[in-house]
Amino acid sequence: MKARELSPKTVHSAVPLPGHRVVLGLDEALRLDSGARLGPFTVAYQTYGTLDARRSNAILICHALTGDQFVIEEHPITGKSGWWEIMVGPGKVLDTDRFFIICANVIGGCMGTTGPKETNPATLKPYGLEFPVITVGDMVRAQTLLLDHLGIEQLFCVIGGSMGGMQVLEWASKYPERVFAAIPIATAARHSAQNIAFHEVGRQAIMADPDWCGGDYLSQGRNPRRGLAVARMAAHITYLSEPALHRKFGRNLQARDAVTYGFDADFQVESYLRHQGIMFVDRFDANSYLYITRAMDYFDMFAEHGGVLADAFKGTKVRFCIFSFTSDWLFPTSESRAIVHALNAVAANVSFVEIKSDKGHDAFLLDEPEFFKVLAGFINGAAEHRGLPRR
Amino acid sequence: MKARELSPKTVHSAVPLPGHRVVLGLDEALRLDSGARLGPFTVAYQTYGTLDARRSNAILICHALTGDQFVIEEHPITGKSGWWEIMVGPGKVLDTDRFFIICANVIGGCMGTTGPKETNPATLKPYGLEFPVITVGDMVRAQTLLLDHLGIEQLFCVIGGSMGGMQVLEWASKYPERVFAAIPIATAARHSAQNIAFHEVGRQAIMADPDWCGGDYLSQGRNPRRGLAVARMAAHITYLSEPALHRKFGRNLQARDAVTYGFDADFQVESYLRHQGIMFVDRFDANSYLYITRAMDYFDMFAEHGGVLADAFKGTKVRFCIFSFTSDWLFPTSESRAIVHALNAVAANVSFVEIKSDKGHDAFLLDEPEFFKVLAGFINGAAEHRGLPRR
Repeated sequence: MKARELSPKTVHSAVPLPGHRVVLGLDEALRLDSGARLGPFTVAYQTYGTLDARRSNAILICHALTGDQFVIEEHPITGKSGWWEIMVGPGKVLDTDRFFIICANVIGGCMGTTGPKETNPATLKPYGLEFPVITVGDMVRAQTLLLDHLGIEQLFCVIGGSMGGMQVLEWASKYPERVFAAIPIATAARHSAQNIAFHEVGRQAIMADPDWCGGDYLSQGRNPRRGLAVARMAAHITYLSEPALHRKFGRNLQARDAVTYGFDADFQVESYLRHQGIMFVDRFDANSYLYITRAMDYFDMFAEHGGVLADAFKGTKVRFCIFSFTSDWLFPTSESRAIVHALNAVAANVSFVEIKSDKGHDAFLLDEPEFFKVLAGFINGAAEHRGLPRR
Repeated sequence: MKARELSPKTVHSAVPLPGHRVVLGLDEALRLDSGARLGPFTVAYQTYGTLDARRSNAILICHALTGDQFVIEEHPITGKSGWWEIMVGPGKVLDTDRFFIICANVIGGCMGTTGPKETNPATLKPYGLEFPVITVGDMVRAQTLLLDHLGIEQLFCVIGGSMGGMQVLEWASKYPERVFAAIPIATAARHSAQNIAFHEVGRQAIMADPDWCGGDYLSQGRNPRRGLAVARMAAHITYLSEPALHRKFGRNLQARDAVTYGFDADFQVESYLRHQGIMFVDRFDANSYLYITRAMDYFDMFAEHGGVLADAFKGTKVRFCIFSFTSDWLFPTSESRAIVHALNAVAANVSFVEIKSDKGHDAFLLDEPEFFKVLAGFINGAAEHRGLPRR
């Protein structure tokens, strides 16, 4: 398979980004679920730790909707610490002294991997809505090419939360021989009607912004910042929980003793949400938000198997460890349970733990000692089965 | 008290609306919680049934955020049937053959009562953001003047759901001598952080629309339709429940056999939400949406009584019947329970029923036989205590 590593200079991205970048699909374009073909295309990725001689200690981390490949280092745009720094690093649960850890920006993304903000070679302008609609299946198919490039036949483990968990399920279902262990976290085998509804609100907020320009804003030197901020605000509420919002903010006022009888951010929760919206638009592309939410909406492993989810995992040898969080109302425990039932029906090797937490969907990114403990136990056990050296 | 009934011709509203309209606050302006004064001001209202000779059979219905006074008749703008037609009418639970039923558009509203879209007498232009920020307390204070005008000393009953329930609580707390029975439905004594957050998303969506023009859109002949539609879409999700959305739409496609790999409304739930947004902007004013959501956010009977909600109802003789719905996550049962606990602490006469329903917050507007049955029982019992003739 032909592939070409890029130096930062040749990257199409507006911001020069650190990290690896490889051009894939040089000999054959990526066939997308829509029937369209994409290629050649770039994948931007980060690695941590060292691949062992047997190439047996690789862990692929799949990121969520607005995540990216910068798992543990300072984010090149926001300067904030990596989104899973708490989980990944020397001596941590995903131990970089022990494992070779890979995380790639998904196709359709905006952090260096080919997506709607990159240049369309056919027009030499940013793709915008000319970019083909992609699916979670397409994201994973692109990742298999990255693994080919890296010379990794089988992953020791694929792990991810939310949309990352959808990719994990897709990996285990479509490429079971390339996955030893799979850890889908706070996810679902199909996106619910309520979740599609929330995504649609976000998309409509973006498309309602005149600066969106029918998706052509980059060519026109504009940016639908306000629409994207509103989309982020609505989504952000769904990542938290009522108890967490109550505990964190309640009805506390923002730097004032009394309400102002106006439309300023009187309440801390308003100020926090506005801040979340504003920060987000600095690092994310509005069209990417459309494409990636759409990919999640389209995800339906039930439908793909005639309504019988178990058929997605027939005869699987993958070891599964599935997590949900009690206060997660975006991907509630019932969604994980449906996956567990399907895996049980094919006598798969599966553990399932519902972690008690009031932190909502975002709990998978936060300090949850029980989650870490169970996860570390599973990974150690799986590593032993895989014949990796003891810690 | 001076008051002046208006003929339709003198109404400031852009659309001539049917129904009663009265100018209040002619001798003394309404003193608002903000300290501002509003007056004279117009209240648009509807009545159904006949007031008895003792003026003892009046029921005040308080409407929710986007409701209005058109409870049972065809809506003058949308042509749809009244929002509580299922509950109110001859022989229905709120029986117009037996009771004199009143419903008034709240101040700040946009269906004929003075609000931000009406003409500011000081400038002869629409108020826009010159309209003073109002509270639930202000809405109820305005309603007391309407009752004075109608010559009703004491209401037999005040009833309402959601923001209507907040008004019911305010009535019972501030004007207990004017209320015989109070029925707060699917409501809370203070607006939660999560609910404030959702309202803030809606407000930001409106304010992000360039057609909002800093609130001055009416003077400029514009209308932030897109922003208001997005606000409505986000809010609408919160009125339903995940099970209801799943039952109603699931992942069903909208008039197509397969997804289109695009951003059209592939899913029925998307099409439904878009429709909700589009329909809403025809009948609602964007600034009214800002003002009324703000009033709900500010509502906090706990804070008003030093954190002790029971103090809001000390020595009350009002008979309460409180309802919540199991799948309502906007105003969950825990909120109703907090009110019940406060009422118990002052030995009030209170019944509380949690109705099993998968229809979410909107259940209070829908066909819920158990709800109707319990409510009818309470109303009949209260009517007997009040000495009203048997049905």
